[in-house]
Amino acid sequence: MVLDSGATAWILAATALVFVMTPGVGFFYGGMVRRKNFISMIALSFLAFALVSVQWVICGYSLAFGPDISGFIGNLDYVLMNNVSMDAGDLIYPPILFVMWQLVFATVTLAILTSACAERVKLSSFIVLGLLWTTLVYDPLAHWAWGGGWAMTLGSLDFAGGTVVHISSGFGALALALVIGKRIGFGKYAMEPHNIPMTLLGATMLWFGWFGFNSGSALTADGLAGSAFLVTNTAAAIGALAWLGASWIHGKPSSLGMVSGGIAGLVAITPAAGFVDTKAALVIGAVAGVLCYGCMLLRIGRGLDESLDAWAIHGMGGLWGALATGIFATAAVNKYTGLIYGNVDQFIHNAMGAFAAVAYAFVVTYILATIVDKIMGLRVSEDEEYVGLDISQHGERIPN
Amino acid sequence: MVLDSGATAWILAATALVFVMTPGVGFFYGGMVRRKNFISMIALSFLAFALVSVQWVICGYSLAFGPDISGFIGNLDYVLMNNVSMDAGDLIYPPILFVMWQLVFATVTLAILTSACAERVKLSSFIVLGLLWTTLVYDPLAHWAWGGGWAMTLGSLDFAGGTVVHISSGFGALALALVIGKRIGFGKYAMEPHNIPMTLLGATMLWFGWFGFNSGSALTADGLAGSAFLVTNTAAAIGALAWLGASWIHGKPSSLGMVSGGIAGLVAITPAAGFVDTKAALVIGAVAGVLCYGCMLLRIGRGLDESLDAWAIHGMGGLWGALATGIFATAAVNKYTGLIYGNVDQFIHNAMGAFAAVAYAFVVTYILATIVDKIMGLRVSEDEEYVGLDISQHGERIPN
Amino acid sequence: MVLDSGATAWILAATALVFVMTPGVGFFYGGMVRRKNFISMIALSFLAFALVSVQWVICGYSLAFGPDISGFIGNLDYVLMNNVSMDAGDLIYPPILFVMWQLVFATVTLAILTSACAERVKLSSFIVLGLLWTTLVYDPLAHWAWGGGWAMTLGSLDFAGGTVVHISSGFGALALALVIGKRIGFGKYAMEPHNIPMTLLGATMLWFGWFGFNSGSALTADGLAGSAFLVTNTAAAIGALAWLGASWIHGKPSSLGMVSGGIAGLVAITPAAGFVDTKAALVIGAVAGVLCYGCMLLRIGRGLDESLDAWAIHGMGGLWGALATGIFATAAVNKYTGLIYGNVDQFIHNAMGAFAAVAYAFVVTYILATIVDKIMGLRVSEDEEYVGLDISQHGERIPN
Repeated sequence: MVLDSGATAWILAATALVFVMTPGVGFFYGGMVRRKNFISMIALSFLAFALVSVQWVICGYSLAFGPDISGFIGNLDYVLMNNVSMDAGDLIYPPILFVMWQLVFATVTLAILTSACAERVKLSSFIVLGLLWTTLVYDPLAHWAWGGGWAMTLGSLDFAGGTVVHISSGFGALALALVIGKRIGFGKYAMEPHNIPMTLLGATMLWFGWFGFNSGSALTADGLAGSAFLVTNTAAAIGALAWLGASWIHGKPSSLGMVSGGIAGLVAITPAAGFVDTKAALVIGAVAGVLCYGCMLLRIGRGLDESLDAWAIHGMGGLWGALATGIFATAAVNKYTGLIYGNVDQFIHNAMGAFAAVAYAFVVTYILATIVDKIMGLRVSEDEEYVGLDISQHGERIPN
Repeated sequence: MVLDSGATAWILAATALVFVMTPGVGFFYGGMVRRKNFISMIALSFLAFALVSVQWVICGYSLAFGPDISGFIGNLDYVLMNNVSMDAGDLIYPPILFVMWQLVFATVTLAILTSACAERVKLSSFIVLGLLWTTLVYDPLAHWAWGGGWAMTLGSLDFAGGTVVHISSGFGALALALVIGKRIGFGKYAMEPHNIPMTLLGATMLWFGWFGFNSGSALTADGLAGSAFLVTNTAAAIGALAWLGASWIHGKPSSLGMVSGGIAGLVAITPAAGFVDTKAALVIGAVAGVLCYGCMLLRIGRGLDESLDAWAIHGMGGLWGALATGIFATAAVNKYTGLIYGNVDQFIHNAMGAFAAVAYAFVVTYILATIVDKIMGLRVSEDEEYVGLDISQHGERIPN
Repeated sequence: MVLDSGATAWILAATALVFVMTPGVGFFYGGMVRRKNFISMIALSFLAFALVSVQWVICGYSLAFGPDISGFIGNLDYVLMNNVSMDAGDLIYPPILFVMWQLVFATVTLAILTSACAERVKLSSFIVLGLLWTTLVYDPLAHWAWGGGWAMTLGSLDFAGGTVVHISSGFGALALALVIGKRIGFGKYAMEPHNIPMTLLGATMLWFGWFGFNSGSALTADGLAGSAFLVTNTAAAIGALAWLGASWIHGKPSSLGMVSGGIAGLVAITPAAGFVDTKAALVIGAVAGVLCYGCMLLRIGRGLDESLDAWAIHGMGGLWGALATGIFATAAVNKYTGLIYGNVDQFIHNAMGAFAAVAYAFVVTYILATIVDKIMGLRVSEDEEYVGLDISQHGERIPN
């Protein structure tokens, strides 16, 4: 085919939008931690961005999107951007841009994982774990779903990253939280969000970037991109209202709940965005808002310090979205149909892709975190945790 | 016609830009209120976004852009996105994207209205009022100007929403402020902006989004979009300098005045952006800066607590812009000419469109606000107002 | 040629992205100053934006891009947008959009310069100096490199502004710092950054906008734009890691160092973005991170109060980038080759362009600053400096 400058323009712009999500995670999380760890939380996201950016051009892209080895991983043909062309070839956009487009997905996924180690992770250990995790968890999962791996061959649908981005980081966070352990005082002392407006700013950055994430995943500038944009926003909006409403029953409706619900809706619609219509988006988003709220309550009830709810929102929202894609996919939007149109196979294939990602992300993250913990220690010392990571890890603080 | 992927790419990107304006209003307003209401102010904008997003796909879009009923309102053909196509049909972009594009205009309009009820509105009442207002004020006005209604038939020009967005929210805010009444202590105690940098951040988000708002309204990626972009920025910049200069005469030139002037310029150029040239933009923006500054002084002098000046800036700036479009429209930019080129009719048609919007928005908002106030009370209790809306409405706070 | 709507769409979107950089500089710098000057720092960037926006449509664009006079400056053919067309003519995008595209480069350049006069500049003097500087330093340099001036004729390559934007503002800042003098107490008292998260927010805005800056400079939506996007990000990411690593040797790795390194990488890749490949970007970015870190230490060691390191990062990073373009340019990306491919001439031409910009920016800024200082005084009074510019210049403050 010939390069389509309109499609290319949208992918360029969408890539810039998705970039914003990685620092967006930093601000979203940063507002929720205690003041002494605010800089640390944003810095972890920036660091995730820088580390994965370099890993991606060196080997990550090749592992995820290189020619397939046994359905599991890509080979090393594209290392250091060898054999990656600036010409469209048989695509409508340049492959070199596709590298950059996929890069911003890889970075934000590692940033989401920082939820599990908030306010207690050692900086040097995070660097090591982050590089291992991206290489051994993210890159294979991206290959499975998008790079010609077994899930793609099977026909498991994941439009913009329900399994690759959200299940991987959400269930990875669950494993990491179990390995790293609770923050000192967790469950004993209130750990009040110190700056909710910054969390709302982070939510703005995420919502903004998500339009690029989902609509850009059409890799065209046409009706599919437009439909993905609208269903994305619809699921987010109703997700926000659903969590707000559900939490209002038990107490005051918090702004934090509202944007958490919005993000739950965004997560759930992610794998479905190019396959479902607006009515399905209303269902997917509403269920996501209530489900993820419930999972958060469950997580708190169990005394589990997966601190900023990557599991409840990204993990469980992503799992619901992956299944929902198999339920609601409609040929009116794209060429696939789901369970409600009688296609049981699509549901089964999507469930297989999703649960395989759940298991792989959880198990491999657990192993990697344990290894890093044994060798260099995942946590800072008790003293450093008391004084906060801003000072202990970065030598910085927010003066009064 | 056939879909133009370049035009579609720009509408996609521009939609994402305009999205940023709704939380942008939240940060712009939020920095100007007292600390105890900061979260509330941002939350109201987010809530406006979520509520209107859902209303829009259910019925709002159909009421605004459905087949015309008597020049006043659209019918229900497009309810729940029925009959809305992903194919371009006789357009150059997909109608499903046009739904999303118009959605972000509807959301920001309700967000602007929150100026009038800042620091005192009851959350549940805002939800009810917001849904009523969007359905009964915004949707008809959008239909009049853009959806095939009487003003469009008449030939009243509104490129990007001078009447639909700014007059409607600005004069709506005037009515709402009269119904809801002053904040406790207004005029007696200083109510100093608590966080001007957040207002400057909001202004950045607004200015950024406004490029999408005005230039995207070309619905093409061509010289018209480029010209709209440049005149938008020109009016904003000179508006900022004009307000800064005017306020410097009486005291110190505040950053708040500078960005208020910038927004006044942006408002005023909105209806004109696709019809006037750069020289006219300099005049429109400069007048807007001084005029809106004067209206703010008038508003304060009258002891009116339209708290964050939606009326002075959006209402009066929008009115000036609508008239200015009828004055400065030039065939060198688009096919229309205004008063200075001898076309008296254009001025009259624009004045009719503008003043009808002024009257309709004011009267219907007044009625709706009064009804909601009688039935469920628009304001929080006195105690809740003292403690602030963050705690009383959301159960959240910014700890010291 | 005929207008390419895809290329136009990308330039429109990229222009909006670059806009964000000017307030981005304000937040980046604002977080690093003391609390009493935070509003001032953001306000200076906004003011730079407004002033230059108006200057640009009146005469700046014409001086930079008007028909050439002696290789030094453009003539006045395009004053007030005369003779600037909405039709593409022999381009693939509308010239009126090119005006707006170039405008956002001019504004951010003046904003970078505010580094040198942070926390002590008199507002009225900044306005005068800013207008003079843009007209007499920026506009000629833009003409030299891009508007048909001598450097362009010579074949000196500057893809997105290494000389025009970064050398000019960085070496201009050095001169301005020498003229305006140190802040009271500089070197005696610690001047701790008061709000690092706001600096990280500014860095996010800069990084985001820079994708538009460099990739948009392709003025197409194709493989060149995609390649420029990827090398930009690569240099930024490795720059961040390089500075982080270098500073870790001497102490704790600060988030401020990480984002400073990111910006150093962005600066250095700017002139090279459309000429080099990913491997070269890794080298360019890594060197930039270490080099600019070293220059910052040198600057501090010399007791020079070029307060926010525009010289170290933009000046020296830009100089390195301009030279590196002459070293690493490869025909695999664009039609030019550099030193490592045996083309000594390209290196010499780039060095000539770069050092001429260094000399011109330094000398003319020194002269202009001296003149403004003699006539109206560049600095506020000692009392005003103690109380802070927020109150003394703007009558605003951030209450506790």
